[in-house]
Amino acid sequence: MNLLIYGISGHMGRLIEELANKDSFWKEINGIDEKISKDLLSDNYDVVVDFSHPSALDDVLKLCVEKRIPLIIGTTGFSKDQLEQIRVASSEVPILQSTNMSLGMNILFALVEQTASILNEKVDIEVIEAHHNRKKDSPSGSATSIVQSIERGLGEVRKHQHGRAGECLREKGEIGIHAIRGGNIVGYHEANFINELETLKIVHEAHNRSVFAQGALEAAKFIIDKEQGLYTMKDVLKL
Amino acid sequence: MNLLIYGISGHMGRLIEELANKDSFWKEINGIDEKISKDLLSDNYDVVVDFSHPSALDDVLKLCVEKRIPLIIGTTGFSKDQLEQIRVASSEVPILQSTNMSLGMNILFALVEQTASILNEKVDIEVIEAHHNRKKDSPSGSATSIVQSIERGLGEVRKHQHGRAGECLREKGEIGIHAIRGGNIVGYHEANFINELETLKIVHEAHNRSVFAQGALEAAKFIIDKEQGLYTMKDVLKL
Amino acid sequence: MNLLIYGISGHMGRLIEELANKDSFWKEINGIDEKISKDLLSDNYDVVVDFSHPSALDDVLKLCVEKRIPLIIGTTGFSKDQLEQIRVASSEVPILQSTNMSLGMNILFALVEQTASILNEKVDIEVIEAHHNRKKDSPSGSATSIVQSIERGLGEVRKHQHGRAGECLREKGEIGIHAIRGGNIVGYHEANFINELETLKIVHEAHNRSVFAQGALEAAKFIIDKEQGLYTMKDVLKL
Amino acid sequence: MNLLIYGISGHMGRLIEELANKDSFWKEINGIDEKISKDLLSDNYDVVVDFSHPSALDDVLKLCVEKRIPLIIGTTGFSKDQLEQIRVASSEVPILQSTNMSLGMNILFALVEQTASILNEKVDIEVIEAHHNRKKDSPSGSATSIVQSIERGLGEVRKHQHGRAGECLREKGEIGIHAIRGGNIVGYHEANFINELETLKIVHEAHNRSVFAQGALEAAKFIIDKEQGLYTMKDVLKL
Repeated sequence: MNLLIYGISGHMGRLIEELANKDSFWKEINGIDEKISKDLLSDNYDVVVDFSHPSALDDVLKLCVEKRIPLIIGTTGFSKDQLEQIRVASSEVPILQSTNMSLGMNILFALVEQTASILNEKVDIEVIEAHHNRKKDSPSGSATSIVQSIERGLGEVRKHQHGRAGECLREKGEIGIHAIRGGNIVGYHEANFINELETLKIVHEAHNRSVFAQGALEAAKFIIDKEQGLYTMKDVLKL
Repeated sequence: MNLLIYGISGHMGRLIEELANKDSFWKEINGIDEKISKDLLSDNYDVVVDFSHPSALDDVLKLCVEKRIPLIIGTTGFSKDQLEQIRVASSEVPILQSTNMSLGMNILFALVEQTASILNEKVDIEVIEAHHNRKKDSPSGSATSIVQSIERGLGEVRKHQHGRAGECLREKGEIGIHAIRGGNIVGYHEANFINELETLKIVHEAHNRSVFAQGALEAAKFIIDKEQGLYTMKDVLKL
Repeated sequence: MNLLIYGISGHMGRLIEELANKDSFWKEINGIDEKISKDLLSDNYDVVVDFSHPSALDDVLKLCVEKRIPLIIGTTGFSKDQLEQIRVASSEVPILQSTNMSLGMNILFALVEQTASILNEKVDIEVIEAHHNRKKDSPSGSATSIVQSIERGLGEVRKHQHGRAGECLREKGEIGIHAIRGGNIVGYHEANFINELETLKIVHEAHNRSVFAQGALEAAKFIIDKEQGLYTMKDVLKL
Repeated sequence: MNLLIYGISGHMGRLIEELANKDSFWKEINGIDEKISKDLLSDNYDVVVDFSHPSALDDVLKLCVEKRIPLIIGTTGFSKDQLEQIRVASSEVPILQSTNMSLGMNILFALVEQTASILNEKVDIEVIEAHHNRKKDSPSGSATSIVQSIERGLGEVRKHQHGRAGECLREKGEIGIHAIRGGNIVGYHEANFINELETLKIVHEAHNRSVFAQGALEAAKFIIDKEQGLYTMKDVLKL
C-alpha cells in the first residue's frame, strides 16, 4: 500500500515515516509539507495521514475528495467551521479524525465517559494535562477530547474553567482544566472525580511520541478499505 | 427498621452507628461484640451489618440463618472455607459481602476489569495500596478485590508478586502488589497498566472512613426486602 | 496562659479552640468575631491568634499594639499595604505571620528554596495546589508562599502564569501556578522542577485541618515571651 | 582527553559513547567488555567509566590502579567486600562511585537526608521505585542510596521492609521499600514521610536514560585532575 504523509517535516510526520519504513505493509511512502508540490504527487496513494496544521485543511480535503483517498487526521486546533468541513467531506471519502491515536488514551476516553455518567452530580470534575514547554496551545487537543467525553457521560456541556486566579469560587458543575508545561513531557492527562468522601482519578501517560505514530498507522491500515463516513479510534480499537 | 451492628466497638462499627443515628430510617440500633450476649438481642432485627473479625463468622451466620435476617458483611480476611460458608448461608438468607462499600471503589472494580480485558497481554499490571500504620494484614481486602476484578478481565488467575527484593526478574504476566503503610492513611488504591509506550492508571482515594460506613448502610437498606442469595455492591449501585 | 482567638466562629478558629481546650497550658480561652465586642475582652491575654479575615486587620493590630499582646496571624489574602501595616506593628509587639503553620509545609518551603537555587535556569517550574470546593481565592496563601520561597532561591521574582488557555507558549522562566478545587480536599501542594531529562517534585499533603491549628498553637506558645519583631514558622520549628 | 568505557556494549555504555562522541573534549573513545582484550588497550587513558557488572570489578580496579587512571563507577549491585575493595583502591587513584549520576537524583539524596533529620521519630517512611520490566535486581541501586541518605539523616540504620504480605503489622521505625516493575520505565523514585496529619513526598523521575550518561561524563571530566580518594556526585555537583 502507498502512504502519503501530510506534514512530513514535523515531529509527528517524521515519526510516522520512520515507523512506516520498518513495516513491509507500506510500499511507497511519500510526504509533503506546506503547499502541495503537485509534481511530487503520484496518483496512486491508498491513504493520507495528516499531521500538519489547521491552515492546510482545505488542501488536504481537496486532495482526498478529488482523488478518493481515505484520510486520517491527527492535526489538532481546528475551528468549528473546519470540523464541519471535515464532516461534509466524510460523506464522500472515509475520514478518521482523532486528537490522540494511542490505544491507552482511547480507553481513557471511554472510562471517563462511563464514570461521569455514573457519578454526575455527585462529584467535582478537574482535568490536568502536562506537555513539553514548546507546545503552543492550551489545553491539549486530547484534554479537550477528555472533557468532551466527560460531557457525553454527563449528558450536557458544562462551563470550562482554565486555571484559577483571584476571587473565583468554584461554580457547581464547572469543569476545571489545567495545562502544565515543562521540559520535554510527552503527554500526561488525568481526570479527577472528587467528592467529600472520595476521589476517583483516571490517568494516562505517554512515554514516547511513537505511541501516537503507531496509532496513526493502525488507523491508516484500518481505513483503507472502508466506505465513506466519519470514523473514530473506537472503531479501530473496537472499544 | 431495626439494625444490628456486629463489631460495634470497632472503628467501622462506631462510624456506622453514628451515621445510622442521624437517619430516621433506622428505629432501633443495637450493637454487639465478641461473643453474642444473647440477652441483648431482641428478635426483631431487619438487617445485620457485620464489621467484626473473621473468627465471629460462625456466630454471625448462625444468628442470621436462624432468625432469617438479611446480612451485610464488611469484615475482611476470610479463609476460602469461610467464603464457602457464606455462599452456603446465602441459599437461605440474602447476604451481601464486599471488601469496600464505597461507590467510587466499586466503579474502580468495574473500570479495571474492563481495562484488563482490552489491554491483557499488552501490559504489565502493578497494584499499589496505602493504609494507616495500624493495619495488620496486607494487601488490603480492597486490593485483593481489585486484583480479582483484573483477573476476571484477563480471563485467568495470575501469579501475585508482593513486593520485590533481591534477584527477582519480573515474570511475564505476574501482577505486582505493593502495600504502603503509614500515618493515618484512610485508603488509597491504584492499578497501573504499563507498556513500552504508555501507562494507564486508575486511582481511588478515600478521604474519610465514613465513606465505607455510608456504603454499608446503603447496602443494608437495599438488602432488607431481597430474596435469599449472594449480592454485591454492583447490585446496590446498579453498576 | 490566656488565649484570645480572633475569628473563633470560623473553621480554623473552632479547631484551635478545640485543641487548646485539651491542653492544660491554656487557662482561659476566649474568642471573638467580626467587630470586637469590647465587653467580652478581659485585659489579660497572653497571646492573640488571628484566623479571621483581612478586613479585621486594623482591629486586631490596634488591640495587640495597645495592650502589648503578642500576635499570631494565620489569616491570608492581605494586600501589600496590609502586609506593610503588619511589619510596622511588629516594631512594637512580636508578630508571627504564616500562610501555613504545619511543620511539613514549612519544611517544603525550605526544600523548594534550596532546589530552586541549585537548578535555577536548568528547569521549568510549575506549582499545583488543590483545595476544597468552597475556597474563595486562588491560588492558596500557601501556594503563594511556595512561589515566594522558590523566587528567594532563584534570586529574582518571575512572571506567574495562572492556568493556560488558547495560544500561550510558555515563556522561559515563567512559573506556572494551577489551582484545583473539588470536594473537601484539606490541602495539597506540589512544586515541579522539570527539564528535558528529569523532573524533581516536592509534595505536601495535609490530611486533617487540625495540622494547621496545631502549628498555630505551637507558634502561640513560642511567641509569648519573645521581644517585638516579625517572626516566621522557621523560628518556631528551628529550621 | 581519552576515555575508556568499561561495559561498552551495555545500554549505558552505548549511551555514554554516543554522548562522548558529540563532545570535542574527548579525543579517543574506546570501550571494552567482559574480559579485557589487552591488545585493544592503549596506555594513555585519562579516565575510565565503568558501567559493566560487579563481576568485572577486579579487572577494572587492577587496570586503574596499575596504570594510575582515575575511575568512575556506575555499576550497581556490589557486595560489602567489593565496596571495601573500592575504598582501598581509592587510596591510590581517585574513584567516584555513584548509583545514580543525575543532577536531580543527587539533589533528592540531599533533600531526603535533611527531611529525615528534621522529622525523624515523627513520621513513617516509605520509599517507592519503578523501573522497566527487564531489571533483574530489586530494589534499585538508587533506591538503596535513598534509604542510606534517609538513614544518615535519621542517625541510625533501620529495618527495611521490602513489600508486605500476610500478617505484617508495621514496626515502628521500619522503612518500607517497594519495587514496581513494568514496561520501559526509565527510573522513578519517591520518598514518603507520613504522619497522622500530613505527608511530605519527594519524587524524582528520569525521562531519558541519557540523564545518567550525561552525569557520568560530567563526573569523568571532574575527576581527571583530582588526587586519589573517594569522591561522590556531591563533589561534582557542589551540593
